[in-house]
Amino acid sequence: MSVSFNQPIDSAVMPRCSQPATLMRLPYVKSAQDLDIALYGVPFDLGSTNRNGPRLGPAQIRDMSRLIRRVNPTTGVNPYNLAQIADVGDSKVNMMSLEKSLSHIEDFVAQITGYGAAPVGVGGDHTIPLPIMRGMRRSGYLDQAVAVVHVDAHSDTFDSLGESKINHATAFRRTVEEGLQDPARTVQIGLRGTRYAEDDIQGAYDLGMRVITMDDFEEMGRAAVIEQIKTTVGQMPLYITIDVDGLDPMCMPGTGAPEPGGIMMRDMQMILRNLRGLNVIGGDVCEVSPPLDQSGMTALNAANLLFEILCLTAETVARKKGQST
Amino acid sequence: MSVSFNQPIDSAVMPRCSQPATLMRLPYVKSAQDLDIALYGVPFDLGSTNRNGPRLGPAQIRDMSRLIRRVNPTTGVNPYNLAQIADVGDSKVNMMSLEKSLSHIEDFVAQITGYGAAPVGVGGDHTIPLPIMRGMRRSGYLDQAVAVVHVDAHSDTFDSLGESKINHATAFRRTVEEGLQDPARTVQIGLRGTRYAEDDIQGAYDLGMRVITMDDFEEMGRAAVIEQIKTTVGQMPLYITIDVDGLDPMCMPGTGAPEPGGIMMRDMQMILRNLRGLNVIGGDVCEVSPPLDQSGMTALNAANLLFEILCLTAETVARKKGQST
Amino acid sequence: MSVSFNQPIDSAVMPRCSQPATLMRLPYVKSAQDLDIALYGVPFDLGSTNRNGPRLGPAQIRDMSRLIRRVNPTTGVNPYNLAQIADVGDSKVNMMSLEKSLSHIEDFVAQITGYGAAPVGVGGDHTIPLPIMRGMRRSGYLDQAVAVVHVDAHSDTFDSLGESKINHATAFRRTVEEGLQDPARTVQIGLRGTRYAEDDIQGAYDLGMRVITMDDFEEMGRAAVIEQIKTTVGQMPLYITIDVDGLDPMCMPGTGAPEPGGIMMRDMQMILRNLRGLNVIGGDVCEVSPPLDQSGMTALNAANLLFEILCLTAETVARKKGQST
Amino acid sequence: MSVSFNQPIDSAVMPRCSQPATLMRLPYVKSAQDLDIALYGVPFDLGSTNRNGPRLGPAQIRDMSRLIRRVNPTTGVNPYNLAQIADVGDSKVNMMSLEKSLSHIEDFVAQITGYGAAPVGVGGDHTIPLPIMRGMRRSGYLDQAVAVVHVDAHSDTFDSLGESKINHATAFRRTVEEGLQDPARTVQIGLRGTRYAEDDIQGAYDLGMRVITMDDFEEMGRAAVIEQIKTTVGQMPLYITIDVDGLDPMCMPGTGAPEPGGIMMRDMQMILRNLRGLNVIGGDVCEVSPPLDQSGMTALNAANLLFEILCLTAETVARKKGQST
Amino acid sequence: MSVSFNQPIDSAVMPRCSQPATLMRLPYVKSAQDLDIALYGVPFDLGSTNRNGPRLGPAQIRDMSRLIRRVNPTTGVNPYNLAQIADVGDSKVNMMSLEKSLSHIEDFVAQITGYGAAPVGVGGDHTIPLPIMRGMRRSGYLDQAVAVVHVDAHSDTFDSLGESKINHATAFRRTVEEGLQDPARTVQIGLRGTRYAEDDIQGAYDLGMRVITMDDFEEMGRAAVIEQIKTTVGQMPLYITIDVDGLDPMCMPGTGAPEPGGIMMRDMQMILRNLRGLNVIGGDVCEVSPPLDQSGMTALNAANLLFEILCLTAETVARKKGQST
Amino acid sequence: MSVSFNQPIDSAVMPRCSQPATLMRLPYVKSAQDLDIALYGVPFDLGSTNRNGPRLGPAQIRDMSRLIRRVNPTTGVNPYNLAQIADVGDSKVNMMSLEKSLSHIEDFVAQITGYGAAPVGVGGDHTIPLPIMRGMRRSGYLDQAVAVVHVDAHSDTFDSLGESKINHATAFRRTVEEGLQDPARTVQIGLRGTRYAEDDIQGAYDLGMRVITMDDFEEMGRAAVIEQIKTTVGQMPLYITIDVDGLDPMCMPGTGAPEPGGIMMRDMQMILRNLRGLNVIGGDVCEVSPPLDQSGMTALNAANLLFEILCLTAETVARKKGQST
Repeated sequence: MSVSFNQPIDSAVMPRCSQPATLMRLPYVKSAQDLDIALYGVPFDLGSTNRNGPRLGPAQIRDMSRLIRRVNPTTGVNPYNLAQIADVGDSKVNMMSLEKSLSHIEDFVAQITGYGAAPVGVGGDHTIPLPIMRGMRRSGYLDQAVAVVHVDAHSDTFDSLGESKINHATAFRRTVEEGLQDPARTVQIGLRGTRYAEDDIQGAYDLGMRVITMDDFEEMGRAAVIEQIKTTVGQMPLYITIDVDGLDPMCMPGTGAPEPGGIMMRDMQMILRNLRGLNVIGGDVCEVSPPLDQSGMTALNAANLLFEILCLTAETVARKKGQST
Repeated sequence: MSVSFNQPIDSAVMPRCSQPATLMRLPYVKSAQDLDIALYGVPFDLGSTNRNGPRLGPAQIRDMSRLIRRVNPTTGVNPYNLAQIADVGDSKVNMMSLEKSLSHIEDFVAQITGYGAAPVGVGGDHTIPLPIMRGMRRSGYLDQAVAVVHVDAHSDTFDSLGESKINHATAFRRTVEEGLQDPARTVQIGLRGTRYAEDDIQGAYDLGMRVITMDDFEEMGRAAVIEQIKTTVGQMPLYITIDVDGLDPMCMPGTGAPEPGGIMMRDMQMILRNLRGLNVIGGDVCEVSPPLDQSGMTALNAANLLFEILCLTAETVARKKGQST
Repeated sequence: MSVSFNQPIDSAVMPRCSQPATLMRLPYVKSAQDLDIALYGVPFDLGSTNRNGPRLGPAQIRDMSRLIRRVNPTTGVNPYNLAQIADVGDSKVNMMSLEKSLSHIEDFVAQITGYGAAPVGVGGDHTIPLPIMRGMRRSGYLDQAVAVVHVDAHSDTFDSLGESKINHATAFRRTVEEGLQDPARTVQIGLRGTRYAEDDIQGAYDLGMRVITMDDFEEMGRAAVIEQIKTTVGQMPLYITIDVDGLDPMCMPGTGAPEPGGIMMRDMQMILRNLRGLNVIGGDVCEVSPPLDQSGMTALNAANLLFEILCLTAETVARKKGQST
Repeated sequence: MSVSFNQPIDSAVMPRCSQPATLMRLPYVKSAQDLDIALYGVPFDLGSTNRNGPRLGPAQIRDMSRLIRRVNPTTGVNPYNLAQIADVGDSKVNMMSLEKSLSHIEDFVAQITGYGAAPVGVGGDHTIPLPIMRGMRRSGYLDQAVAVVHVDAHSDTFDSLGESKINHATAFRRTVEEGLQDPARTVQIGLRGTRYAEDDIQGAYDLGMRVITMDDFEEMGRAAVIEQIKTTVGQMPLYITIDVDGLDPMCMPGTGAPEPGGIMMRDMQMILRNLRGLNVIGGDVCEVSPPLDQSGMTALNAANLLFEILCLTAETVARKKGQST
Repeated sequence: MSVSFNQPIDSAVMPRCSQPATLMRLPYVKSAQDLDIALYGVPFDLGSTNRNGPRLGPAQIRDMSRLIRRVNPTTGVNPYNLAQIADVGDSKVNMMSLEKSLSHIEDFVAQITGYGAAPVGVGGDHTIPLPIMRGMRRSGYLDQAVAVVHVDAHSDTFDSLGESKINHATAFRRTVEEGLQDPARTVQIGLRGTRYAEDDIQGAYDLGMRVITMDDFEEMGRAAVIEQIKTTVGQMPLYITIDVDGLDPMCMPGTGAPEPGGIMMRDMQMILRNLRGLNVIGGDVCEVSPPLDQSGMTALNAANLLFEILCLTAETVARKKGQST
Repeated sequence: MSVSFNQPIDSAVMPRCSQPATLMRLPYVKSAQDLDIALYGVPFDLGSTNRNGPRLGPAQIRDMSRLIRRVNPTTGVNPYNLAQIADVGDSKVNMMSLEKSLSHIEDFVAQITGYGAAPVGVGGDHTIPLPIMRGMRRSGYLDQAVAVVHVDAHSDTFDSLGESKINHATAFRRTVEEGLQDPARTVQIGLRGTRYAEDDIQGAYDLGMRVITMDDFEEMGRAAVIEQIKTTVGQMPLYITIDVDGLDPMCMPGTGAPEPGGIMMRDMQMILRNLRGLNVIGGDVCEVSPPLDQSGMTALNAANLLFEILCLTAETVARKKGQST
């Protein structure tokens, strides 16, 4: 363990409500050059087909992440002892252009990962895994299609929606088509919600993804879900992407398309905590829409999930450095 | 499948937030004459003994039903392929007179059901099943006491409350007394909450209803509850009435008398989805009080439950028409 | 006065909270063919450079317009006695494409005005006057550059913002460039708010508009502002466009870019009521962002301003028909 | 000055947020027998024709009255040095019956005023001045038609609304008809808001009331309004009744029928403070609907207005006792 | 059963929203002299290290306790038939001094318990069990270290935080050090949430407490947790202290340090209901921060938990009096 | 004008919602060493005697200051062309100790001003001007009692409150007693609100301050108020301190002790804009309590007032540097 790693602001000295908000109260740095893991935001929501607002997600998640401490209560992992981590701020986006924004996000992630830093981000709508994966591939951070754990109420594998090929309902078809994501190493978890058509999520099956609907989840039980993820993903480089509407609206009311009957935070936390040992190379938490939940609970829960992804990613970093956790 | 059935507005063409809000984005029609199922509202809350506001329920449920799509994710049922359905608007009510309002509601439902359309409504406080059943009987739509699945935190079978014989705490004693509801074919589910007196819900047992309190529910498990409903109801014409306070306040915060420790949306959805094959001839969702939940989650969940009742009713309609689902 | 004109639902019979919400409780009709005035919505916010949400504006304004009655308390005008008016629903928009949406809006307004109906709309962000004016011109409803009363905290006459030539900060430069709007017959009212640069609103002056900042407004007084509008506009066809951020944030908290120190509702109402006799041919109220004001006050006030524009437009219609008011 | 008068809880000793909430932090007593002034609540809203909720008004006004101190900053009046004042709790109401509730309220006020205590209450919807005046007359507290200062956006002098003769839109026609209120000694202030019909408020003029619409108010100016009240009322026993929608919705968002462009709190306070010397024998503040303003600002402002009425009433009491203020 | 015990206001006569709010609608009395159980509030939050607001907790819990009825639906216990209970108001606190406030709280509880009344209180932040136990000991109500069931997301057994030895993160180390609490008879339930350091909750184990983290809770199951409590506590005098953040934030959003994945209300209710027969001598519910949940759900749930503690305490009282329940 | 001064993030490139929030979107720097003006926060509220929450003020004001642009619309001043300005973060505070916090704040301000940077801060409760002035004096930044423009609903010149000599109701008596503030060069503006005692604000007069109550303000008119400030203050070093409750609650609902009938934002802005030329050496905006206004309007208005103080301070800096504005 290196004592030189960045540490969150010590809340016993500077209270939680103090200082400008950064992700996890870590330093805000302009470059990922010296980082193992770059936390970042993508204030983008032009891929939203429904109620919007996720452009304000990074700001509120930063604010609510003040409440997160350093050590994972189940695994004992303290990511700040394992890796050099900082908040590198937000990707540039263009508020009037989906296309330019996708390009900016791709550039931003390519730069981060070009330095070898693992990208752990907060959205933004759930279009952003597409430019994120493009950026990871372009920089050489990824040299193959990535395994994906995808938490969501919706499959996001439409071919198009609203005459548009790129939006938050199609992103994961695009990533597969572009060879960025390996569908055979993909698990979609939490699908439910009323559907446009009888074959709405058939696309995910046809692409070869392992789909665990809420009906499946309930039937299998949490332990089997965890096992299924491990089996499917193996030791492939794994990207974790969470659309917060995969969680139950009681946990995540502030999102554009809430669907009752979803994953509970406890289950989500325990699933992620049991993915230790997998080769997690980054992840994101998307679709937090602050204007739809001014209480901040959605953002708080998103910050907690971000911490879980951070712990997993930090362990991967540490393993690769030959450190023991 | 008939291509001539009304379809919800296509959200891929006209986004969810667009157009005047109707229930399920269906056409608003002035008469139920050509309908198999009439969706409608009852903006009435003069039967409330507690915090009020359900008069505003239909408006907010219409608005939140924008988020509901066409196909049930568990059963695969698409009600819009099975039956002619529309929003017939709201019953007339008189804001200063409980009595006149009951009469208006009865007339309204008698007219709907006189055309043979199945009534699927949103309240309004939970007094309204009384005039609804009266209307169904008067029109001849019902020619016998109906079986009832009644979801609620409270039994609503007091003889009187506050010197009043007709209100949201007494409605289901009245329906039995008037021969509208068959207590032997009735299941009450979700009862809990502190009580006025030791024998508070004894009335329901005495009337001969099958009562499943939350304590019972937990002990039995969901599957046994479903089985119990099927056994009790059989193939009798079945009316489903949901007071949203039967659900947990985490799901339904916006209601006058929330009681912690209730039914979760997932369980409620799965119970309803497992009632396929029963002879569902209508239903309602009541006690959504929008001013008590400006976030709209209560109304969104109510709209989701309305969809479940709609699916069941549409299958009944289709069976009767000799169609296969 | 014709008794055959559409009337709002009678709230003494069907209470305000009842029935699907339409603008002013008027009938929702699919075509403007037989209308004098078409009320409509534009659920579009892809021109927003800041906090978004106006795509949800038409829905909430419809809901809050339930509270508006029939007769103007200052002028005594009852628009429903003067003209055939209905809610024609919302323009189609494309949630992922600003360009396609502009085209849809233009088409929609061209169709409305092609029937000769005056367009009175609710946004949507304040980009929409551009496609609205394009549509009015294309249909021949307008055959010259229109006079404009433009209420706003911002001038919206930038040449570009965020590398974009068409958005809610540039729309009124575009309308002038395209010959749709006559800057010499334009009054901008309410400008204030901190500025990007020293010459931020210089563009409006350079284009030849009559600019009344809040500093000017206060110095002149309301009566002189009214006089200035009349002098500038004369009997030219006049379009009234209100960005609700022109009003004070106390009145209009739910908008993306609120600026303290703005026009009060009382003054705004009285200015509009004193424009009787001008040749008002349509108008809009924009930038209501419901998620930023779940109380609905912003939408309620927007509905009240819509009513004022409606009264003025109805009087114009009546005058043209040779009716007396 | 008597040192034995009840005093509000001393906030320097027991902080404002402490102790059960009573009106003005005064003792809660079961009888008005020894009081000069009885503060009380009427949790009634069955006379509402629109959005409801005022039944919850007394509770929230009690809570927000924690923030009111003892001395009027403009007049220097300390009512607790002038009269024996307490909170006598709420009138009984029947949640299902307008008629029974009116009877209960009348009884309650008759009892209070039968002891000679001046009634200063909080509603409740604006039907309640009718049973309040009935109670005052029945007990002999009033032996003639009372002068009234009536603040409201609406005249409340319809003959009927919704087939109902007694509700919050008709109460002040009934009081005149029953000889309880002297229309020639009545001033209505603040009328505005769109109207049902051209002659909506004509009734008030026809009854002989002095009507000051917002248009009149603005033209006259505040000083002339005050003068008009004094001239009209003279030294007649004066009852002050405030529907909070008479105030601007910026001050009073939490009410069923808000109308923009109303009286500001500053003007309202100064009007009331300038009525010193009039023979104020009681009053009320009505139509606070807490669910429509969870921030509590409406209730806080209502509590401030209640304090103004209390100061005026206490001075009347003191004058009658031969005390100097 | 004695008919002379205080009863909550009868909501069938005086509706729930009426009368000044007291805990459980019981009489507010100035002294605990004649009581078996004293309900009280502690509007104190100077021990908060995070987001504050619990000083406003007692007021909102009083208000929401209007919704609680008399009889426990699972156990059938009616505490108002078993003991003389009243609301004795709030402890004095000093808003600028933690030290003086602790002293006031201790005095207040010493006085209550000096009369032999069992103290059942609402906070306030979770520092207050320290002065409460001090007061119980000083009065002789407790003559030994008390057994404690402590529900919390955090262990509150730090030695110091923020250079402070007494605050809501250290209180239960102080109580043990001062011999007020028996760690061997203590069960902490619900611990989870990210931690300051790897050994964050080690203090609780080191002190000898029985710690049941959420991980333990889930593994053990609810029945085993109940059994463990019974085994650990035995027939020792038992104090129950609930930091509402021990519950899940879905149930208790309005608290300073919410941690996802906590105890659900249903489980909490059933645990408490299964502690019948234990020697419960008092308890508290803390950390409700009303400004963080203006909907009141947190306070409503807190009121429900207060009722559970009240039922257990009333049964203890009755047993000691030789009464049967 | 120097091009090297820090500039706010360019919102045309990085949208307003992006990047970690700092005051005015300026760089966050750890030291004031190279600054002309240091923007900072004080997340302290242990001096609150009422509803609390201002500890969260700096965070929300930072977030809402995203909406502020660069140039003053009335004066044309662009502070970022006049001075080197940055956000230096928050003062350390101790959440459990008023005394330690005061000491930390004094140290923090002494350090800032020791570098010669002008302190422009956001609170925090309105105790903080005391340690701020102490810090300014200790560092030598101030070498005499400072002139003060003090905006407030309350005089804050009690000798003690709640047995405490230092809190938000006494701070400005302490500053005078300690020779930090010159009462003869002090103007208090906006005083109103009910009072504890008849002589509540007499202290301010007795200390020799120029007191402008709201009654005075209204009588004098805004222009005379501005003139009075100029006359009283002259060219003395001037500190501007704004308790947001000096403004009307319609502008500033989110504060602990709102008083209706206060200063409007427009007037406040114009007063400040007319103080150009005075020798403004720093200032603060206090008492924003975010939990009491989750909409953020209070914080937005506070950020706007902060900008006004910043403009005045920057002009002072520029004048001293011999620059012309």
